[in-house]
Amino acid sequence: MSDDTADHELRISKIRDGTVIDHIRGGQALNVLAILGIDGSRGEEVSVGMNVPSDRLARKDVVKVEGRELSQGEVDVLSLIAPDATINIVREYEVEEKSRVERPEVVEDVLECPNAGCITAADEPVTTRFEVLEDGVRCAYCGAIVREDIAELIRE
Amino acid sequence: MSDDTADHELRISKIRDGTVIDHIRGGQALNVLAILGIDGSRGEEVSVGMNVPSDRLARKDVVKVEGRELSQGEVDVLSLIAPDATINIVREYEVEEKSRVERPEVVEDVLECPNAGCITAADEPVTTRFEVLEDGVRCAYCGAIVREDIAELIRE
Repeated sequence: MSDDTADHELRISKIRDGTVIDHIRGGQALNVLAILGIDGSRGEEVSVGMNVPSDRLARKDVVKVEGRELSQGEVDVLSLIAPDATINIVREYEVEEKSRVERPEVVEDVLECPNAGCITAADEPVTTRFEVLEDGVRCAYCGAIVREDIAELIRE
Repeated sequence: MSDDTADHELRISKIRDGTVIDHIRGGQALNVLAILGIDGSRGEEVSVGMNVPSDRLARKDVVKVEGRELSQGEVDVLSLIAPDATINIVREYEVEEKSRVERPEVVEDVLECPNAGCITAADEPVTTRFEVLEDGVRCAYCGAIVREDIAELIRE
């Protein structure tokens, strides 16, 4: 990125090795960062565009992360809040892999059930398990369904 | 921004009317968004660069917000977490005003005192008031000093 912000265009420098997450649903970029545990405090070089006009989606978000490739587990969780996302793995400035996220049928040990009466919320050694619905997730233990704000269920 | 992320450079489209906050201390961009109440959910067009190499600072963050000019109150709070920041107001693609933030001597009604025993934390009609120190803030009522994580004191 140029140090001169009088430039009309903000150029974000080339990503050398890392991941570009594109076609994120507009307004979900900060949730994507939360899923990836990125807040900038560890010096991670990251760029984010929010609510950018897009051909495929009315508005999209884009996240570029330098020096990091996502694990399958991270991609699975991303798919819950960004079902249309594409993942581009960049190595030595070239896009090496391009894929769309796929929603898993089940996510285990990733989300916390919001139902305080659920057995997974008690102090028991039970791994959380959610079935992935078309428009949300359902706790396999208590049946609680969450359709919005799934990002808030992500375990710290 | 191009819809084709195979591009080596991510170009963020020109900002027409809005604000560019530059030279934010590296890793503080998400706190800047929090201060401005921006999470992308209202369709705000925003771009963020985190931990970008910079001449003036070792690493800096940059935030560009379309369609918004900051109030003096917002700039005052920004100055607490981003004392080196420059604020560029853009109108019709031109930088109309360029200024550096200045730290106020006092901030009122913006931060919450972290001391649970402070009178401002009780259910009393007292406006919070903090003196701004060189390296933090001090509650004018109970004397509590906060040097880090000032962003967490910002009232919702």
